[in-house]
Amino acid sequence: MTVQQIKSFAAGQWIEPGTGARAIASAINGQIIAQAGNTALDVDAMLDNARTVGGPNLRKMTFHDRARMIKVLAAHLNSHKQALYDLSFDTGATQSDHLIDIDGGIGTMFVYASKGRREMPDAHVYLDAEVEQLSRNGTFLGQHICSPLLGVAVHINAFNFPVWGMLEKLAPTLLAGVPAIVKPATASCYVTEACVRLMLDSGLLPKGALQLVSGGLGDMLDRLDAQDVVSFTGSADTALKLRSAPHIQRNSIRFIAEQDSLNASVLGPDAAPGTPEFNLFVKEVHREMTTKAGQKCTAIRRILVPENHVQPVIEALNARLEKTVIGDPRLETTRMGALVSAAQKQDVLEKAAILGQQAERVYGDPDNFTLNGAGLEAGAFVPPMLFHCADPDTATRIHDTEAFGPISTIMGYQDLDHAIALTNKGRGSLVASVFTHDGDVARQVALGAAAWHGRLYFNNRDSATESTGHGSPLPHMVHGGPGRAGGGEELGGIRGVMHYMQRTAIQGSPDILTAIGGRWVPGAREITAPAHPFTRSFNALEIGETIHTETRQVTVEDIEHFAEFTGDTFYAHMDEDAAAANPFFPGRVAHGYLLLSFAAGLFVEPNPGPVLANTGLDNLRFMAPLSPGETLGVRLTVKQKTKRNDEYGEVRWHVTLTNQNDERVAEYELLTMNAY
Amino acid sequence: MTVQQIKSFAAGQWIEPGTGARAIASAINGQIIAQAGNTALDVDAMLDNARTVGGPNLRKMTFHDRARMIKVLAAHLNSHKQALYDLSFDTGATQSDHLIDIDGGIGTMFVYASKGRREMPDAHVYLDAEVEQLSRNGTFLGQHICSPLLGVAVHINAFNFPVWGMLEKLAPTLLAGVPAIVKPATASCYVTEACVRLMLDSGLLPKGALQLVSGGLGDMLDRLDAQDVVSFTGSADTALKLRSAPHIQRNSIRFIAEQDSLNASVLGPDAAPGTPEFNLFVKEVHREMTTKAGQKCTAIRRILVPENHVQPVIEALNARLEKTVIGDPRLETTRMGALVSAAQKQDVLEKAAILGQQAERVYGDPDNFTLNGAGLEAGAFVPPMLFHCADPDTATRIHDTEAFGPISTIMGYQDLDHAIALTNKGRGSLVASVFTHDGDVARQVALGAAAWHGRLYFNNRDSATESTGHGSPLPHMVHGGPGRAGGGEELGGIRGVMHYMQRTAIQGSPDILTAIGGRWVPGAREITAPAHPFTRSFNALEIGETIHTETRQVTVEDIEHFAEFTGDTFYAHMDEDAAAANPFFPGRVAHGYLLLSFAAGLFVEPNPGPVLANTGLDNLRFMAPLSPGETLGVRLTVKQKTKRNDEYGEVRWHVTLTNQNDERVAEYELLTMNAY
Repeated sequence: MTVQQIKSFAAGQWIEPGTGARAIASAINGQIIAQAGNTALDVDAMLDNARTVGGPNLRKMTFHDRARMIKVLAAHLNSHKQALYDLSFDTGATQSDHLIDIDGGIGTMFVYASKGRREMPDAHVYLDAEVEQLSRNGTFLGQHICSPLLGVAVHINAFNFPVWGMLEKLAPTLLAGVPAIVKPATASCYVTEACVRLMLDSGLLPKGALQLVSGGLGDMLDRLDAQDVVSFTGSADTALKLRSAPHIQRNSIRFIAEQDSLNASVLGPDAAPGTPEFNLFVKEVHREMTTKAGQKCTAIRRILVPENHVQPVIEALNARLEKTVIGDPRLETTRMGALVSAAQKQDVLEKAAILGQQAERVYGDPDNFTLNGAGLEAGAFVPPMLFHCADPDTATRIHDTEAFGPISTIMGYQDLDHAIALTNKGRGSLVASVFTHDGDVARQVALGAAAWHGRLYFNNRDSATESTGHGSPLPHMVHGGPGRAGGGEELGGIRGVMHYMQRTAIQGSPDILTAIGGRWVPGAREITAPAHPFTRSFNALEIGETIHTETRQVTVEDIEHFAEFTGDTFYAHMDEDAAAANPFFPGRVAHGYLLLSFAAGLFVEPNPGPVLANTGLDNLRFMAPLSPGETLGVRLTVKQKTKRNDEYGEVRWHVTLTNQNDERVAEYELLTMNAY
Repeated sequence: MTVQQIKSFAAGQWIEPGTGARAIASAINGQIIAQAGNTALDVDAMLDNARTVGGPNLRKMTFHDRARMIKVLAAHLNSHKQALYDLSFDTGATQSDHLIDIDGGIGTMFVYASKGRREMPDAHVYLDAEVEQLSRNGTFLGQHICSPLLGVAVHINAFNFPVWGMLEKLAPTLLAGVPAIVKPATASCYVTEACVRLMLDSGLLPKGALQLVSGGLGDMLDRLDAQDVVSFTGSADTALKLRSAPHIQRNSIRFIAEQDSLNASVLGPDAAPGTPEFNLFVKEVHREMTTKAGQKCTAIRRILVPENHVQPVIEALNARLEKTVIGDPRLETTRMGALVSAAQKQDVLEKAAILGQQAERVYGDPDNFTLNGAGLEAGAFVPPMLFHCADPDTATRIHDTEAFGPISTIMGYQDLDHAIALTNKGRGSLVASVFTHDGDVARQVALGAAAWHGRLYFNNRDSATESTGHGSPLPHMVHGGPGRAGGGEELGGIRGVMHYMQRTAIQGSPDILTAIGGRWVPGAREITAPAHPFTRSFNALEIGETIHTETRQVTVEDIEHFAEFTGDTFYAHMDEDAAAANPFFPGRVAHGYLLLSFAAGLFVEPNPGPVLANTGLDNLRFMAPLSPGETLGVRLTVKQKTKRNDEYGEVRWHVTLTNQNDERVAEYELLTMNAY
């Protein structure tokens, strides 16, 4: 068998590991399959390549450009994933585990590609929330923007997810417009290297956008500055060592940590044996204990059940654990594979021994269990082990000892407050789950425990079919947690992109804000179009292009006619005395929808043209009533343009309805699809 | 003259400074006016009081309850502010400076009180953005919430703004629902103590919500945990020492730092002498140099002007500086007062000497300047000093030496890229400003420099009248900056509240999310009301209360009639062939506004009742066209309720329009005002 040489990719070159590389053994049989390391990585050249080549290349692109690139990259990986599956068995993972790591990682890229185009502008700066009115007359306004950091992201990843662990950081980083240097854990870096090679060989990434360190980082972290980011996943001890470094602290270098977590799962007080929630709970705990052989930072380490249900849960879990086939992950009959390495096995057994000091082992014996397959004697296998802690209030180690394997501890609680207190004893975790069909239970847990958790997962009979699982971080939702979990955040949709961007408060005149943000701000210069803007193509339209329509008097007959036609005979439109008694109206007033409809009549261009459809309307506010006899006028301005596909794009129009005194009657934003 | 004893307020008791207290001298004349310190503060009792009394008391209140409390508290301070003015002169501040510190601090509270009620719910958890669709059928969804941290905020403040510095942190902290322990800098702590006393004596704050440490914090920071927050303003050296402490790092304790900053102001390439921008620039630089005697973290330390305008700017600045009357801040004729202390004076002169190594002093002589007033010999006065650096590319100290007094350095730039590069040489600052009337200049600076700055301030002839100034952090806008500035953020409206809350991803069924968030989520249980919901008072309405209206067929005559009546004769409604050629429509379709109007006709209750007005509409999306002959129905559900005043509150309705096959035609949220 050949021993694969795992390379680094630095400043455009693949670098051999060189002498002194570390041997990597198969988790299944202990044979040496690869060597990784680096003797002569030029850290400065790598940082320079990222900062002066990768960053500028990425920043030339818009958010949408980068989102499209991520989508194609994900599709490329998807069509080549079999090669990654093949390699991944040696990490001890089963095919089911591969789906989480490899397909999960690719899926995360697809979600970022989609969110990037739907939730970010086709532009170089992201507008964070709305304009702030800082002045009475609106000549001085505020707007927050986010722009890409000018440095590099250093991703330090854990061994358990060699693909997802990279891609879940890479997708938001690239979307932000920041180059990445990826440093996988050595134990499974051969899978990461293969995935990086696929991405680089695809030719889809601009130069300098992605580099790889197999082996140690050298003194790279000492050469970072405040435009760089470290995103770390791994142990609390390593995180503490890295983040406490004087250079990191002195330069306020962003350090995102996702580390140890003693995640809890709570069987609700309402979920007695026989309920759907009881069964869902047992199934989920079993799944979380055995998937990836328990090597998941989100796995359930603490099982909290009502005291009188402890025995039934133990029995139900044991019945499932007994049926769990452990062994060669390449065999389809195997349900659970190996830990990643002999070193991890030793660590897990040591942690299990610590748990054993304060809890009784009620399932699993590391010295006596059956393996499925042949030649596995030197593999890093451990059986699932379930502990029962009879006194969870005084036992401290079950709340702070993370045995990173198929190991969990069950404990009883007296009432919901007790369950919340026990959950919080983890002192900060990535996720806690609750199996309940009672909204009040959910609300109490949220109020009492949310502050200690990055994610709260609820499941019951209503959501069972579609729920994604306690242990699955989704790209849409924040992943990370306070305290012991590291205090970091990743993912969470566009929130995860912000870790690689700087938020800046911008203050200035409407014209200045419009120039910076590329979105028209009320008060900015109005551009007079050479023709009705509805006759102009998407590409021809300019931000700020404006028409002032003709005006139309709204008569009492119009109001009565509209009321009769639509059936909306609300008294404020129909009855002068009743309307005048209403605190908002001087007397009878026109319907809001009548005004919207008349406004459309004033600005719509009837003939076929570039405007294909009115697709929506946002932020409508009625500001002053319009009385019979008063006159309506409309101002329509191009606020923002966003390409949507090859044929048409979305135009957001700022619409102001005014009366005969030029007072604002209503404002809203109108959305149309316009052909290029 | 009596020497005032500055106390601490700990666990409900005012504590005398005791022996060994530090003497505080007047900045004006050097006389000892107060003593501060603490010998026997019980740190554990303080933390315990905050965590077990203050936190629970605050968390019982909703965001709106706390916002109202902050408003009344601000009004109370406003009516007692003369006492604070009287004390503040001894810090060296003029009456104009008091307006920034005292009125500015009170104003910040008013803004938070207002934003809390407008932008946060009248509830115990804050919903962060919209529901995430995690499943095809919508039985499993995501929602991010923010809930108050369960610990305490420790605010460590700088000497320069004894009131604003406290209140700008306190307002968002209290709004979040978190108790605070305030530790002012000793040099001006007598003003802070007086302000704290006003707040406590008002009786408006719940017990445990606010405590004060005059003197040192002891080992308080070593007793914090991950539910606590440290918010620090001061020097980079102190910040580094505190934040690097192993206990802080090991426990992932949030540490917000706002520290040194070499803020730049750029005269745009377009702003030649004689332009309004040139004059605004000179005026602003002068104001920033002399306000608070330059003791502002946001003051302009680096003046960047086109090379050929260096001399005109120096001349214009010197002319203004020469007219600046320095002296007793109590005198109305005085424009600039003293530094806060003799120690600060010494520090500033040392820093000025460092600047003098790489730049030439072109205005001001600390050994020779005139003072306005008598008995000022022992005061901490320095004159404004302007330096000119001829080679800003090689001079390093002008970009890293913060002389915290009325001191600034002017330098020439060659072109805009050079100006951006020089601006960024500050390696992270709180604010940079640009005086330009050219939107392209603004955009280029934003793209090139935003990542290094927490705030970019633009001013020109359009915004001059209403602009708030380079150096004024506003509660609406983020205050803080990357790198040298500490990497922290404060203020920024509700963003600033989030520093004291935990964001948690919630996953579950629509019913579970509704129970936790208090806002109806599509797919959640519909409650059938005992009567039409428009006949039910605000208080009677339940979240989830729903009606399904009668249906109405939409005929081609309806469409033609509506077109004629409103003037909206868009071809998609009028011409079968032209409509069918449109990519969005199968043929002629009903107007979107016709559907909205008919929908209102279907759900409106005509007679006077609790619904007072339709005030707006959000997030309307047309999802499928409705063809002539098809039938429209409406589902209307109470989504959220928000009290607005003593008489009525806002009801947000979720509205779904459907066709005869129960397919969604449109969705939107409707806003009404409803009487209690």
